[in-house]
Formats: sequence, C-alpha cells, structure tokens
Amino acid sequence: MPRLETDSLGPVEVPDAVYWGAQTQRSIDNFPFGPMEQMPLGIVHALALVKQAAARVNRAHGLDKGLADAIEAAAADVAAGRFDDQFPLVIWQTGSGTQTNMNVNEVIAGVANERLAGTRGGKSPVHPNDHVNRGQSSNDSFPTALHVAAVVALNRDLVPALDRLCGALDAKAKGWVGLVKIGRTHLQDATPLTLGQEFSGYVQQLRDAYQRLRDAESHLLRLAQGGTAVGTGLNAPEGFSAAMAAELARLTGHAFVPAPNAFEALASNDALVQFSATLATLAVALTKIANDIRLLGSGPRSGLGELMLPANEPGSSIMPGKVNPTQAEMLTMVAAQVIGNHQAVTVGGMQGHLELNVFKPMIGAAVLRSMHLLAVGMVSFAARCVEGLQADERRIGELVERSLMLVTALAPEIGYDNAARIAKLAHAEGLTLREAGLQSGLVDAATFDRLVRPGDMV
Amino acid sequence: MPRLETDSLGPVEVPDAVYWGAQTQRSIDNFPFGPMEQMPLGIVHALALVKQAAARVNRAHGLDKGLADAIEAAAADVAAGRFDDQFPLVIWQTGSGTQTNMNVNEVIAGVANERLAGTRGGKSPVHPNDHVNRGQSSNDSFPTALHVAAVVALNRDLVPALDRLCGALDAKAKGWVGLVKIGRTHLQDATPLTLGQEFSGYVQQLRDAYQRLRDAESHLLRLAQGGTAVGTGLNAPEGFSAAMAAELARLTGHAFVPAPNAFEALASNDALVQFSATLATLAVALTKIANDIRLLGSGPRSGLGELMLPANEPGSSIMPGKVNPTQAEMLTMVAAQVIGNHQAVTVGGMQGHLELNVFKPMIGAAVLRSMHLLAVGMVSFAARCVEGLQADERRIGELVERSLMLVTALAPEIGYDNAARIAKLAHAEGLTLREAGLQSGLVDAATFDRLVRPGDMV
Amino acid sequence: MPRLETDSLGPVEVPDAVYWGAQTQRSIDNFPFGPMEQMPLGIVHALALVKQAAARVNRAHGLDKGLADAIEAAAADVAAGRFDDQFPLVIWQTGSGTQTNMNVNEVIAGVANERLAGTRGGKSPVHPNDHVNRGQSSNDSFPTALHVAAVVALNRDLVPALDRLCGALDAKAKGWVGLVKIGRTHLQDATPLTLGQEFSGYVQQLRDAYQRLRDAESHLLRLAQGGTAVGTGLNAPEGFSAAMAAELARLTGHAFVPAPNAFEALASNDALVQFSATLATLAVALTKIANDIRLLGSGPRSGLGELMLPANEPGSSIMPGKVNPTQAEMLTMVAAQVIGNHQAVTVGGMQGHLELNVFKPMIGAAVLRSMHLLAVGMVSFAARCVEGLQADERRIGELVERSLMLVTALAPEIGYDNAARIAKLAHAEGLTLREAGLQSGLVDAATFDRLVRPGDMV
Amino acid sequence: MPRLETDSLGPVEVPDAVYWGAQTQRSIDNFPFGPMEQMPLGIVHALALVKQAAARVNRAHGLDKGLADAIEAAAADVAAGRFDDQFPLVIWQTGSGTQTNMNVNEVIAGVANERLAGTRGGKSPVHPNDHVNRGQSSNDSFPTALHVAAVVALNRDLVPALDRLCGALDAKAKGWVGLVKIGRTHLQDATPLTLGQEFSGYVQQLRDAYQRLRDAESHLLRLAQGGTAVGTGLNAPEGFSAAMAAELARLTGHAFVPAPNAFEALASNDALVQFSATLATLAVALTKIANDIRLLGSGPRSGLGELMLPANEPGSSIMPGKVNPTQAEMLTMVAAQVIGNHQAVTVGGMQGHLELNVFKPMIGAAVLRSMHLLAVGMVSFAARCVEGLQADERRIGELVERSLMLVTALAPEIGYDNAARIAKLAHAEGLTLREAGLQSGLVDAATFDRLVRPGDMV
Repeated sequence: MPRLETDSLGPVEVPDAVYWGAQTQRSIDNFPFGPMEQMPLGIVHALALVKQAAARVNRAHGLDKGLADAIEAAAADVAAGRFDDQFPLVIWQTGSGTQTNMNVNEVIAGVANERLAGTRGGKSPVHPNDHVNRGQSSNDSFPTALHVAAVVALNRDLVPALDRLCGALDAKAKGWVGLVKIGRTHLQDATPLTLGQEFSGYVQQLRDAYQRLRDAESHLLRLAQGGTAVGTGLNAPEGFSAAMAAELARLTGHAFVPAPNAFEALASNDALVQFSATLATLAVALTKIANDIRLLGSGPRSGLGELMLPANEPGSSIMPGKVNPTQAEMLTMVAAQVIGNHQAVTVGGMQGHLELNVFKPMIGAAVLRSMHLLAVGMVSFAARCVEGLQADERRIGELVERSLMLVTALAPEIGYDNAARIAKLAHAEGLTLREAGLQSGLVDAATFDRLVRPGDMV
Repeated sequence: MPRLETDSLGPVEVPDAVYWGAQTQRSIDNFPFGPMEQMPLGIVHALALVKQAAARVNRAHGLDKGLADAIEAAAADVAAGRFDDQFPLVIWQTGSGTQTNMNVNEVIAGVANERLAGTRGGKSPVHPNDHVNRGQSSNDSFPTALHVAAVVALNRDLVPALDRLCGALDAKAKGWVGLVKIGRTHLQDATPLTLGQEFSGYVQQLRDAYQRLRDAESHLLRLAQGGTAVGTGLNAPEGFSAAMAAELARLTGHAFVPAPNAFEALASNDALVQFSATLATLAVALTKIANDIRLLGSGPRSGLGELMLPANEPGSSIMPGKVNPTQAEMLTMVAAQVIGNHQAVTVGGMQGHLELNVFKPMIGAAVLRSMHLLAVGMVSFAARCVEGLQADERRIGELVERSLMLVTALAPEIGYDNAARIAKLAHAEGLTLREAGLQSGLVDAATFDRLVRPGDMV
Repeated sequence: MPRLETDSLGPVEVPDAVYWGAQTQRSIDNFPFGPMEQMPLGIVHALALVKQAAARVNRAHGLDKGLADAIEAAAADVAAGRFDDQFPLVIWQTGSGTQTNMNVNEVIAGVANERLAGTRGGKSPVHPNDHVNRGQSSNDSFPTALHVAAVVALNRDLVPALDRLCGALDAKAKGWVGLVKIGRTHLQDATPLTLGQEFSGYVQQLRDAYQRLRDAESHLLRLAQGGTAVGTGLNAPEGFSAAMAAELARLTGHAFVPAPNAFEALASNDALVQFSATLATLAVALTKIANDIRLLGSGPRSGLGELMLPANEPGSSIMPGKVNPTQAEMLTMVAAQVIGNHQAVTVGGMQGHLELNVFKPMIGAAVLRSMHLLAVGMVSFAARCVEGLQADERRIGELVERSLMLVTALAPEIGYDNAARIAKLAHAEGLTLREAGLQSGLVDAATFDRLVRPGDMV
Repeated sequence: MPRLETDSLGPVEVPDAVYWGAQTQRSIDNFPFGPMEQMPLGIVHALALVKQAAARVNRAHGLDKGLADAIEAAAADVAAGRFDDQFPLVIWQTGSGTQTNMNVNEVIAGVANERLAGTRGGKSPVHPNDHVNRGQSSNDSFPTALHVAAVVALNRDLVPALDRLCGALDAKAKGWVGLVKIGRTHLQDATPLTLGQEFSGYVQQLRDAYQRLRDAESHLLRLAQGGTAVGTGLNAPEGFSAAMAAELARLTGHAFVPAPNAFEALASNDALVQFSATLATLAVALTKIANDIRLLGSGPRSGLGELMLPANEPGSSIMPGKVNPTQAEMLTMVAAQVIGNHQAVTVGGMQGHLELNVFKPMIGAAVLRSMHLLAVGMVSFAARCVEGLQADERRIGELVERSLMLVTALAPEIGYDNAARIAKLAHAEGLTLREAGLQSGLVDAATFDRLVRPGDMV
C-alpha cells in the first residue's frame, strides 16, 4: 500500500516500503532511464557525508540536538552504504543535482523520522529541507559532494592502482636493466637500448601522471559548501563554509578547505574539467604503454616477438591455440572511453550560465566512471599482464645483432655521410654491417670492432 | 557445489546453477569491473539471433538436425531475454568480443545440453565451438551482432522517439504559426518572425537528422558474417554469408545484406563510427533546441519570458517556489555524453590493426548507450516539456512592439545609412522608432506606417 | 595618404591603395590575429559568387542595369582570385561572418566605383549595402558561401584526391591478388589471406567514405540565401531564394537548391557539422590504412617487413641510412587534426542561439582546412608512398609457412579442442604444425596435407 | 640558376638564393601543403636556440672553435628572426620533425659557410649533421624545441594576456562591488548577489587557470635534449643534457632542466598533452565568461539588458543600427578551436610507438596556435569588450525589485513550504512578494520588511 508524501507541488504516492519522499518519486517518474543509468553511489555517499557534517555544524548553530543527532546517525548510515537501495534516481535529471540532493535529504529524514517517531518517511519531526538541508542548497552541496567523491575515489582507488601498475613496470625495468635490444623509432630499426630502459620510460610516464593528479586534486580540495543558492551564502550561518570543510576533512581524512570564491565554485566546474583532463592524459599514457606491450608481444611467429604475454584465456572461438593480448585491449578500450568522457565533461563544463553550471550530474558521473575504469583497468593490467611478462631473450639477441642502425656509432669517427653509405650497402646486399663496412673500405676491422658494440651504445 | 568446465587452457570451476562454461568464467575473473559495466543486453540478444540464424543455415549444410533444432530453440530463448541473468561479462574484455561470443555459445550449448541430455552446461552433445559457433568466428559474429543490435534499437527506439519529439515541435510550430515575436541574432534584438517559424526550424533540424540516420543505417545493414577469422571465410560453407544475412533479415524484419568486402567489415568499424557521428550531430541539434527553449522560458520575471515551461517538480532545495527547465537540462547533459561517446568511438575506430579492429565492445556499448540516452531523452523532453509549452502572448507582444530592429523595413526605401541613424537616435533617446523617425526628418509618418508593420515582416 | 571611409559608426581612415571601406578597416583593427589566421580564400571567392549571382537576380528585380553590370563584373573578378590581397580579415571576428561579408561588399563596390567613377572605394554610385548586398544579409549570405565553398572544394579537390588514393590502393590489391600471407588479428598470427585481400579492405573503406561524403553533400546543396536577417526573407524580393540557388548552380555547376526551411539554415549549422563528421570518419579510415602500411613496412630487419616503402628522404639526422614512413606519418598527423577540427566544429555547432548560430567563420574555416589537409595528404600519400610500395615476397612466404594458425583448417575435421592441442604442442616445442600434428597422433599425414594448404585458405 | 646540394639519397637542385640544402628541398617537394600550413616560426626559433646552445656546449667538448663560433652566430641570427624566409617547410612532414631540424641545420650551416668560405649553402667547412647537429638527434632536439617554444610563448604572450583580462575583470568586480542584482540559476530567477560578486567568480576562474598553467609548465621545463636517437644519449658527450639545459636556461631566462628520463621524453608527449589540456580548460572558462557577458548584454530592448557592451563596429549588413557582442563571439570561437586542437593533440599523443612519438609537428603546431589564439583573443576581449562594459543600473534595479526569489530569505523563519506558497501565489496572481506574503497570512509586514532586504542577502 503506497503512502502519500507531499512537496510544494502537492501530494505524491510512494511505495510504503521506501524511505524517500515526494521529490524523489517525481524524479523517478520524470526521468525513466532505467537502473543502468543510476547516479553513482560514490556521489550519494559523499552527499550523505555532507549531511552528516551539516548536522554537526548546525547543532552548534542552534539546531535541536535530538534532531541533529538523528540526522547525523542516519546520514552516517547512508554514507556507509546501508541504504544503497534507496537511491533509484538517474544521472539524467536536473543539472544541479537537486533531485539527488533531495533524495538524500528525504531518505535521511525518512530514516530519522522512523527512528524518532516510528513512522517511515514524512517531514516530521525531521524535515528534509528545513533540517537535513539546513544552511545548504543543492547548488553548493552537490558540487561539494562531487569534489568529495572524486577525492575519496582518487585516494582509495586510483592512486593505489597507479602505484600497483607503476610498481609492476618498475620491477620489470629493473629486472631487464641490462638486456640490450634493438630500438625502434618511426617503427623502423634504430640504435639499441635495454629493455629495462624502455620500461623505465613507462614508469616515468606514470610518475608524471601521479604528479599531475595531485596538482589537479589541489583544486578539488576546495569546496563550494557555504555558498548556498548563488554563492552569497544566504541562509547559512556565519562561518558555515569553514566549519563544513573542517568537518568533511575530519570525516574523510582529506584536507578540504572552503573555496576561495563561492561564486566560481557554483558557476563553474573548472576544477572537475581539469581533473578529467588529467585522467585523459593518464589514458593517453596508458594507451602508449599498452600498445607497446601489445606490439612487443606480437607473434608468436610473425610479429616482433620480444615479449611473451601471459595466456589468460583461449584467444579465439575459431582459431585453436591462439592467445591474445586481452588485457592490453581492455586497457586501451578503457582509455578511449576516458578520453570520450573528458569530451563530455568539457562540453558540459563550458555551458554554465551565470550563477550555476547545470551539467553537474553528467560531469560527476563521467569523472567517477572514468576513475573506476582506470583503477580497475590498471590493477587488472598489472596483475594479469605486466607482472607475468617474460622477455624472449633469444629473439631479442638475434634482432639486435643483425640491426643496421648500429652504424650510428661509426658516424662521429667516419662522418654521417660515410656511415650512411655503409648502411645502405649492407641493406642492398643483405650483408652484415661489419661485412659492408670492410667491403666499402670506409672503416677497418679494428675501428669497427672498437666502435660497434651494442652493449656500449645503451 | 561448483562443476568443472574445460577449455583449451584446462578446467575451471563454475557455479552449478549457471549455464555458462569455462571461457565465460575466466572472463568474469579476469575483468572485475562490476555489474554497472555489463555488456549491453542488446548485443547479447543480437548475438543470440546470429546463433539462431546460424543453426538454421548450418542445418541446411549438414549439421545434425537434432543438434541444430536444440541450438535454434535455445538461441531463440536467449534472444527473447529469457536467460538475461546468464550474461555477466563486462564491456571491458577482449577487443574482439570473443568472450561475450563464447558466453553466448556456452549458454546456448548449456541450455541445449540440459534439454537434450539432462545435465546443464558442458560440451556434449552440443559443443559451443563446433556446433553453436559453426561456420563463425567472433571476428565476424561480434561485428554482425553490433550492426544488428544498432539497427534494431534504431528502428524500435530511436526513430519513434525522434518522431515523437519532431511531432511535438511541429504541433507547436503549427499552433503558433501567426504569433509574431521579436527575432534575435547574436542574442541581440533583430527583425521579427513568428514563434511558429522559430519552431519550424527545430522541426527541420530533426527531419534532417532522420535522413542522416537513414543514410548511416544503410552501411549498418551490411553484415560481416561469413568472413570468419580474417575475412576469407575459412571454415564457413559456400554461400554462408548470404544465407546468414537472409536469415537475420527474416528474424528481425530489417534488410540485412552481406558486406561487400569482408576484410573491411572485420578490420574497420567505419560504419559504426559514422553512425555514432550521426548520433552526435543529432545531439548537436538537440542542444540547440533545448537551449533555445530554456532561454525563451527564462524568468519568470528577469528573463526573456516568452515561453512558460511545465512545472514538473520543485526546482530548488533552498529557494521555495522555484521551477526549473529540468527536461532541457537532462537533454543537454545527454547530448554532451553522446558527443563524448562519439569521441571514444572515434578513438577506438582509428586504432584497428591489420585484419581486426579490437575496440569493438567499447564501440558497440557506447553506440547503444548513446541511442538509449537519446531515445529516452527525446521522449521525455517531448512529453514533459515541449507538449506542455505555453506562449506568454502578452509578453511576446510587448517585446516586438518596442523593438528597434523594425527599422530594417525602412532600409530599402530610405537607405541603410539613414535607417541606421533613426535606430541609433531611438536607442540613445529612449524613443520609439516611430518617434525617432519623425523627429529625425528622415521618414514621414505615412511612409513609416506603411512600411513598419511587424505582421508583414515575417 | 589615407582616405576617409564611413559607416554607421562614423569615418575611418583606410590606406588609399586598397579597395575596402570602413567596416573592413575596423575589423582589421579590432581582431589583430595576423596573416596566418586569415579567412580562407575559398570562402571569400564563394561570397563573391553570391554577389555575382545577386547582381544578376537583382537586375531582374529592378536594380539599375549599369550598377548591376558593374557589380557583376567586379564580383566575377573577385571570385576568380584577381583581388585576393584585398581580404585581410581573419577567421576570428563576428560569428556571423558579417565583417567578411562587408569586406566583399566593400571591395566589390570599391572596384565597381573605380570603374564607373574613377575613384577607388566609397559608396557611390555603388553602395556596399544598398546595392552589392541588396536582398541579402550576412546571416544568409555567409552560410550560403560556406556551403558553396565546401561543395566546390569537395568536387574540385577532395573527391579527386580520394579517387587517386583509392585507385592506387586498388591497383595494389589487384597486383597482389594471389600473394598469400599470414593474417593477423589482435596483432597475433592468424589464418592466412592474400596481400591483395588485405588491400581490398582499404579500397572498400574509401569507397564507403566516398558514399558518405555524397550523402553529407546532399545537405550542403541546400542554401540559406533568401532568408535574409532571421529567415523570414524580409527585404528580399519574392522568389529570391530560388533564383539565387539557380544562379549559383549555373555559376558553379553544382545542383544547389534553396534550403527547405530558412530558419534552420541560419540558426543551425547541422549540415556542416555532419559534413565535418564525415571528414572525420574518413580520417579514421586513413589512420587505419596508414598505420597498417607503416606496420607492414616496419623493419628493415627487426619489424614485420612485408612491405618495402619508397625512400623519399634521409630518415634521420643522427642515424645514417635510415628510411622512415614519412608519408604515413604525415597522413596520420593530418587525420588527427581533422578529428580535432571536427571537435571544434561540434562545439561551435551546438552553441547557436535562437535565430543565428554565431560560430560560422570558425566552422567554415575548420571544414575547409580539414578538406585541404585531406586532399593534399591523400594525393601525396598515394603518389609518394602507395604507388611505390613493393611486397617482400620472400619474407611474406617465410612467415606464412611457419604460422601456427593454419591449424584452424583442421578444426572442422578433428574438432576445435584437438586442433588447439596441436597448436600448443608446436608452440611449446618449437615444432612445425605438421610435426606437432603427427607427433600428437591427432591427425595423420594424409589428412594434414589435404587440409592445411595456405593457398586454399584465402 | 640553381645549385646542387646533396644528402645521403643523392644530389638535389636548390635555388641559388636560398641557404637551405638537399633535405629541406626534398621536403618542400614531398609535402606540398602550401604557405598557410608552415611550421610555426616559434618552433624554428626555438630550434635555433638549441643549435646556439649546442655550439657552445660542443665547443667545450672539442668542436673546432672557428666552426663553433660561426654556428653560434648564425644560430643566434636565425633565433632572432633574421632568416625567417628560409623556413618554408610545413607542419605535415615526418612525425619526428626531422625535416625542420635539418632545415635549421642546413640554413645555419649555409649561413656559416657563406661567412666563412664565401659560398652560400653546402656542407663545408660547416656540416649540417656533423657540426650543427653534433651531439643531437631530431628525436631529442625537436621535442626540446617544442618545450622551449611553448615556455617562451607562455611567458611572453599567454600569461600577460591572462593577466590583462584578469585585471580588467577584477577592476569591474571592484567597481560593482555593491551593485545588487538578481541572481539566476538554471537561467531562472534566483536570490540576489552583486554584479561585482558575479564578476569576482570570473576573476577566480582565471586565477585558477593561471595556477594550472604553471603546474603544467613545470613538466615543459624538462628537456629531452641529450637523449639523442632513442634516449640512450649515444654520440652525445657525457654531461651534454645538463649543459644544454643550462645554456637554454641562460639564453631564455626560463628554468630548464634535463628530463628525468630521456626515454619518456622522446617516446611520449604527455607534458604537451597535459599543457594542451590546460589550455582547453582555460578555453572552457573563457567560454563561460564570454557567454555570460553576451547574455547579460543581450537586448537592447528584448534581452536581459543588465550590461552595455562597447559598439566596435556596425553589427549587421541588413539591420541598421545593430550592435553585436563580436568580441564575445570571437573569444568563444577561439575557445572552440582550442578545444578541438586539444582533441588533435590527444589523438597524436596516444599514438606513439616504442622509442618515439611521431606526431610531434602536429602537436607542437596545435599547441602554439592555441596559445596564439588565446593570447590575442584575451587581450582583444579585455581591451575592446570588458574594459568598456557599463552596467545599466536602472534596469538592474528594476529586475531585482520584482524578483520572487527574495522569498528565500523568509524560509529560515516561516519554513520552506510556507515560503513556497507565498512565491507561488505571487507568481500566479502577478503580485509582489510582499503583497502575496501579507495576503497569504503566512508572514506579517514587519517580519517581511525585516527579512526581505536584497542588500542584506548578498
């Protein structure tokens, strides 16, 4: 049997079992995109943290202690994931996230009211707007929750995943520190380097990515909370923004501070745009790394064949015995989606009007999805590909031996033009470099053997 | 109690209750992205249609009738959605979709084996590769399924949604055919038009979008099926591709044909890239339309205020009585994501190597998600915004009356430069155009009244 | 010595030698981006065609014959490129292109006045607005010029370039029709195909691209002209749009027609967005093709080495004798810029407001630049890379012989699982497939020799 | 009369008047994109600085002093722009920039040879490879030049332009610090703020953009120089990378250091990708700011009308007296192109292979063009729009007075639901808020007058 809940547009029937109220129910009906399009729970949990913090701050500013305590307890339960089935709203709703903010307000009020008064839902004694949302607006709470959710996911999921992958690549770089191989530029044979040097470049890419994420995070640590409806802080008590940032820092362990300018914090999402851009730069780096490993592992008999990748599954439904670089494929697909999501975020970020950008749910959901894909993708790629990589030392040795680009070592002594003549002769006649050098008369054996030593060229 | 299933890498434990086999189970373990990242069911259903069609064609080419019948029946059940809980794999897997192809092969075999032999799963009497996948490879079946899934969703969901929105806008265009209003170019006042004319532009945008979708669909109707592993059709019987296209056409009602070149059909996803581009162009059009309606409905007292939008929900958690253009916000967010998804599809489409593009699951999932978002978004925007729009005729009349740009009607008679003088005088002195015209001496009252008639200017 | 020109804001000094007037001069001063950012001449020439057509149509509607003839002659000269140094304005100006439209109006008037009255520039007897621009607005002339310029460049430059490259690839496909080589999927060895088949896929990609361009062109053939300021056609005579389209068709040889809805034609740029999207899809295809050729040509000794690319220049400033796939690098860089330009066009296309989209110069310039890059890039790639490609038949033969994936041919007879066992045995022990087959006891020599014939597998 | 120059492919005719040699001439012929596609001079100048620094460092490592001095002098002249007409090569060439590196090597050698030996061009006594390019490869010199060029342009052009615009907005924010106006969220009327507060948000956006640019610059300060062909530093003397960074720091005044990992510095362009991303985030911010100013300036009689924009030019070729927000249009078009360029850079950045990314000329040119567009665009927008903005105080006052959202100030006292009733009553009956409040009986006059004071709400 449904119960009646009301909002400023009038009464609405809601299922008796749920905790939400009228505004949540209206949004369910108004935006029927289905369960695969739900607002990410990371945002819901972060909003609940905002409500928990607000209950504490409001208690200090005169909110009835009984109500504040009940709100805080209910909010903590929502933040801990104990009511995840009470948040059916989708990403595609009002662009301020008001409806998800109200969903959180209503469920916290509904839980608190059940505990205080024995009846689920409703607005008494705890009112979703007047008490749970006190001192707040969706316009400051929702962007605050997006920043909190992103910082939490960054530190809980993404950074550890980046560390894992970086560590796995670094272990390979160290293990192969002296394994000399042919270099390739323009996909053409070039002078040698070690396999460890090659992998050290990937490690550096990820270390730089880490630094960029921290730079971008510094802007996410600034919270809109306290700006209320348009940035002026109307209806929030003096000191609210600082107190809220401090409480959120306490609840999460991250160094949140009030935004230096609340008007910017509501009207723009630049901090999230830049953070998303930084995720996309990481995706660019991961594409390079996964592509290289896929290429070095191509074969087994008609490719470069320098690396052997772990066989995690049969590769083909028609070609028996085939093994494919599936983790690299997964990671490059993930990277493509992250780059696409950044485009969506860019398009959303540029379209704010005056006091509010109304692409917030899309931006928040895209950023959180990108982080999830990257985090799981990097751990999986590390665990199921990189850590199991083996070098085919025999093959690597063969390729470096017969390379023509070792001729580069001669150039400082006999000149670029003469060295080029030797390389071209070797290529045309199918000779080794040494054979071509001696045959050309441009270098003698002793000089050749002194200069052309792959192990000294790296 | 789990049972053992095997593939070419060895045995794997799978839960006894499920129908899938070893390869599905390996993929679950290898790609732990969670349930929100599942391969869209539209792709699974389309793959099942491929298997159903293949059972028919293979029966005609010597597959045991008992096995073929069992496969066909099981495939039909999967295609109808009766085993949707048997497809746990995620988008982020091997780039050929092999694992989802094998998931479908295994579940169909598992269901058929239970019906034929009483034991769930396994490879006997129906073998997932040798019988269900007969004459096929993931490399042709999966792109075939992507085309089938897109064509089905286009005709079942997207085109009707586009029709609904186009019809709603057209009804408004017709209803307001004579309602003269101020035009605005550069967001500055311009010469008048009717509100119906303004809306007729939106209708045209959507009609053009429809034609573009049909153009793009013509390439989706070409199926890769029959190319098998690399495009040569190895292991598929003579005539397989034509027979499969014909069966799929029969099963779906859409005019599928074999791809004119199977190598292209495996190695490139250009048809999906272009289709996604066309969805993005539609998103561009929808952004324009939704933005205009949001702008015309801005107010209620400090905006343009020409349109009144339906109030679907309370607009603000802090500002009582506020009503917001939430359907426009939803639609523009959807559009941003579709544009972003197209970027992901582009990045994936460009990265194929030699005989196979391995970004297929990402591309397919992105295209289907874009279609879903657009379809639901357009219906919702039509039903909850456009159809309920009302014109504020009083406001519209006031604005057109006091416009300065009606002066344009004088230019052919008194010259551009003189007309400009009148407009500038009116603006500077706060006069009406008529007052400024007469005061300037550049036009007489009779001429003015004959030429400057907003109703004649549209 | 400068002369004075005036517009509705007052007098401006312009250099005496130039033909332009006050509005052009203001724009030079207001948008100092420099000569590398000039409005593409293709747009200027197309605008001149619009003016030439308008002179003809206006003469039939009462414009003084002497003035009309002078305008037509001057416009024809501008369209033919005889006054290219008179168009200094940059892309980054007003978003309607008004200033370039006025630049064209002023120069044509200036030339005509010099011929009629002996003094360069000015507004008499030919007035830039009242006579040259008669019946027009920038808001319809400029988008008309963008469509005309794009259609002209498409047919004059892009389609012939596409034909050239398609023909070059097709010649290779035909020349290598029987050259059996190893296939590669997932960059891993797969079943064989011929090099001609591989190239036939590229040919198909370009043929499809051609069809998509023609589909997109059909919307470009619809011209905004006649809509004037906001789409109502105010100040244009009855029948103006049809007469103008007919004249432009006559002048260019392309089948221009009036846009079915002038409001759409001014307020949206969807036709250009879709055309740009189609250029981007072509860029995706070209990336695939160039990447494949670069990959197949990798080496000379440590890559795939199946193709030999022409040596057009020394490849390295430090590595003597190196030859690089520079045409492929050029083409993939071009493709990246075209994809980026499409993003710019998308962002511009979505931001129109009400009666006018004001991103027209950027959109037009980006589309024309993309076309230029693609046209020159494709011809160069055809002439300096594809046409000179040679197959290394010895290397190709070696690779196909030792492939493990020929085992696929056994699967229909001995089953997928047994075939997989043979492939794995060969891989693990370094055997040939035949050796492994016989050693495994899973196939006999006669069966093996009957089934595993690469030449029969393509 | 042409002269003959030679490279490792043989002799080539070059015009006698030019300084360049064989490789430059080949590139002219191989990549015929025309003068509008020239490699940006900023890159050429930066490469010349590299050569100047190398001459100094090589002199200390044994390069003949006479040759070194001549190279240094010629390089300094090229860097100062004295030979700008000697660099005809285009962006679309080899992806390592080798041909532009050789163009610089050849011209410097050609100039030095003329000075030393009296004959222009040639390889003696100064050889382009052996002397000018000594210790270098294109693979490290070209990316070094891209970083140097970007850092120089950032500090010389972009940061001052950002400062100018930020200062202009800040002056407005301070001037309007007390001017109370209606706020708008969702483009709907909201609670008030001051116009100064609104503009302070823009200032904050730009201050944040500045910080992000500095963060991104920190990675550009790391130079690839010293890695030579593949990152190992083959053929460069010990300590070369540090000495080169120090010389370049001395020559430019920027704190360049050697890249921590040379393999990363050649194989990836992540630092440029992130820098480009940061330019795109700035473009997002500028779009918001320009859009707001355009919207607030809409009118003059049928828009929001709160701001009056400077009239820089006549706005329309058909509508006399029209003034348009052309600087805002320019800036938003620029922003769209910058966002598109970043997409091109992203696509290029992700496609490196092994030891080298070969999209460097495209990436470098796109980044420099984006910086140029933003720099000129911001200065122009500041000078010709922001600095001339005026507030229409009468209009602003009227709008705030009649707003309904002042009701928000009542909510803390009478509750959200009652406040909403008052707002809805006022809206429905066309009342002022005060009238509706008293009529509803939900608030008394004294309370109303105490709470609802726009000046106290900001």
